[in-house]
Amino acid sequence: MPEDFERMWADLDPVGRSARTTGYFRQPFTSAERECHAWFVEQCERRGLRVEHDGNGNTLGWWEPALDTGEPAVLTGSHLDSVVDGGAYDGPLGVVSALAAIDVLRDRGVQPGRAIGVAVFAEEEGSRFGLACLGSRLAVGTTTPERAAELRDPDGVALLDAMIAAGVDPGLGRSGWVDRVGCYLELHVEQGRDLDLRDEPVGLASAIWPHGRYRFDFTGQANHAGTTAMPDRHDPMLTYAMTALAANKQARLAGARATFGRIDVGPNATNAVPSRVTAWLDARSASDEALATLVAAIEQQARDRAGRDGTALELTVESVSPAVRFDVPLTERLASLTDPRRPVIPTAAGHDAGVLAAAGIPTAMLFVRNPTGVSHSPAEHAGMADCLLGVEALADCLAELVS
Amino acid sequence: MPEDFERMWADLDPVGRSARTTGYFRQPFTSAERECHAWFVEQCERRGLRVEHDGNGNTLGWWEPALDTGEPAVLTGSHLDSVVDGGAYDGPLGVVSALAAIDVLRDRGVQPGRAIGVAVFAEEEGSRFGLACLGSRLAVGTTTPERAAELRDPDGVALLDAMIAAGVDPGLGRSGWVDRVGCYLELHVEQGRDLDLRDEPVGLASAIWPHGRYRFDFTGQANHAGTTAMPDRHDPMLTYAMTALAANKQARLAGARATFGRIDVGPNATNAVPSRVTAWLDARSASDEALATLVAAIEQQARDRAGRDGTALELTVESVSPAVRFDVPLTERLASLTDPRRPVIPTAAGHDAGVLAAAGIPTAMLFVRNPTGVSHSPAEHAGMADCLLGVEALADCLAELVS
Repeated sequence: MPEDFERMWADLDPVGRSARTTGYFRQPFTSAERECHAWFVEQCERRGLRVEHDGNGNTLGWWEPALDTGEPAVLTGSHLDSVVDGGAYDGPLGVVSALAAIDVLRDRGVQPGRAIGVAVFAEEEGSRFGLACLGSRLAVGTTTPERAAELRDPDGVALLDAMIAAGVDPGLGRSGWVDRVGCYLELHVEQGRDLDLRDEPVGLASAIWPHGRYRFDFTGQANHAGTTAMPDRHDPMLTYAMTALAANKQARLAGARATFGRIDVGPNATNAVPSRVTAWLDARSASDEALATLVAAIEQQARDRAGRDGTALELTVESVSPAVRFDVPLTERLASLTDPRRPVIPTAAGHDAGVLAAAGIPTAMLFVRNPTGVSHSPAEHAGMADCLLGVEALADCLAELVS
Repeated sequence: MPEDFERMWADLDPVGRSARTTGYFRQPFTSAERECHAWFVEQCERRGLRVEHDGNGNTLGWWEPALDTGEPAVLTGSHLDSVVDGGAYDGPLGVVSALAAIDVLRDRGVQPGRAIGVAVFAEEEGSRFGLACLGSRLAVGTTTPERAAELRDPDGVALLDAMIAAGVDPGLGRSGWVDRVGCYLELHVEQGRDLDLRDEPVGLASAIWPHGRYRFDFTGQANHAGTTAMPDRHDPMLTYAMTALAANKQARLAGARATFGRIDVGPNATNAVPSRVTAWLDARSASDEALATLVAAIEQQARDRAGRDGTALELTVESVSPAVRFDVPLTERLASLTDPRRPVIPTAAGHDAGVLAAAGIPTAMLFVRNPTGVSHSPAEHAGMADCLLGVEALADCLAELVS
């Protein structure tokens, strides 16, 4: 099994990787990301799994029992898209481990009493169309096809046009496969250092913090950077700069997270006072109320500063995902498969598992240790020994669920 | 003359104009900017001016005396490129007025004793290749062809490739026409409110403030915006934000100008702490020493904050233009053509006139009133009556210089 596992990583290693940064650029419906899906299809066919494309850009492989018992299926999987300049494990670890876990079950002679599916969800990161978990949201119906059809990438390309250009036959909307799924189990590299600090290679997730994305449109007046006296300016860059510092301070005070990582400036010229700055806030906190309080505090400081700068602020809530609690009986059952039981930890990262859980599908998550906690970065890392322990743990859980 | 003058504006009005912002996008060696040069060639031919392309992207039209007296030529002109989303007058006013002034001189029956040239300089704004007054700098030899050949636009296109793609036959380097020029006189829309506050339609320039462009490369560590605890971050956006606020404050304190109007973030994703922020500072002050002091104060605050954020700062001086004093006898002579004499005012905006003056060519500038002072913006404006007074003033000055 280790050889097959390493061969799968070697296959994926060069796909969409930048020689300059060593990071991955696997934005959805680009050639790099579609090459990852094509590789997945090849892996499914090699294992005799039935391949399904669901019209939302998601790809699934099904191991179906010889005799259909009519029992609901067990679904596992993750995603193969990356953030811009991302790491190797965020997403692919869950897909590669799912395929490897099927190999383990077959080596063990397991004859599943129900179907096992492996899902590869599209645009989990929201790195191209701005809406995270787009593929799973469309599949379960949380996002409507109408809303998805309005999404545009930073170059103005519509989702449907991007899908067609990538050779995907679009059929946006709730996916038929959802109805046959009895539970979902996603394995993911941890994106913090909780397991590392506990000295544990594998754990389970208790809950996902609520998470929102907010667009701040600051507008002022474009002007000459040399001739316009400082008091005569209405510079939205200053309002933005103050807001970015305020977000950091408020998140520190609240034990929460607030990040301005994306910005778009117009006209973005060295010798012009900008006319507008658009910036996106990513905010997360332990409860829905704490998140609302955090964002309100940041907005208040932004508005105060806009008043002083003579600029305007329009705030748009792009998405808010409420807190997600994973299925407690399922998580307890899986945590208790080992002695001592596996640790159960919360996370502030969103996942397709959160979307499926919120849609009422009993869901659990497995995390594999990340020694530095770094993710969404080329420096993201997980040790091969831990990854193999993750595969064994996933195989154990699947065996338990199909028995 | 007013009809011809208005017809020239009507010709230029739609070229490179955005229907959305109403601003101009005439970056050098784009189709819009080259259309402006082609229009200029057409106007020259209509007036029987000999057209010259100098290999640096500059276009000139020469009105040459029937009998060559060997006297050095009088050059006027300006530029037709714009900042990104710029106004209608910054540049074109000097070119259109130069052509109109030739019409006025001919209407008056003036027979010039020496050649009058009209120059259209390329990339005055530095909006594509980052080096302002690139065309005039190459022509007089201030910028070497080797340095220019290394310039890249934001998409990574090299200057020479951009020129060739635009159908320009490049021959970078000092231009032969420079040797025949005895003096240069540029008319420009004012980019502040000095004339408006004096209630004067036209004035002359005394000097250009020193001006520098500095690239601040802030680097940190890309990471997950949800899972990375605030104290564990090395977020270059925070260092940048603090620096932008510091620049504003230092410029206010010094009675100078400092602007961060251009920024480039990597990976620029909503859910990632950025790995790098590159930002460009435009700084200007009344003396070379005051400019150096201003930039040093901003750099110090940036480095202090970088130390606290655990980020790094690399500061690159992209260009510094020292203070330029226009030719005093020439300016006095032209200011005294009216009674009372025209006002003589300083400016904080760079111009090709400053490049020619620094290269030792006796140079003067005429400004036309800008009622709001707004420039580098679609809202830039000059009144038609003032523009016509500008044409008359330019014609008076040219008549004086060729007599």
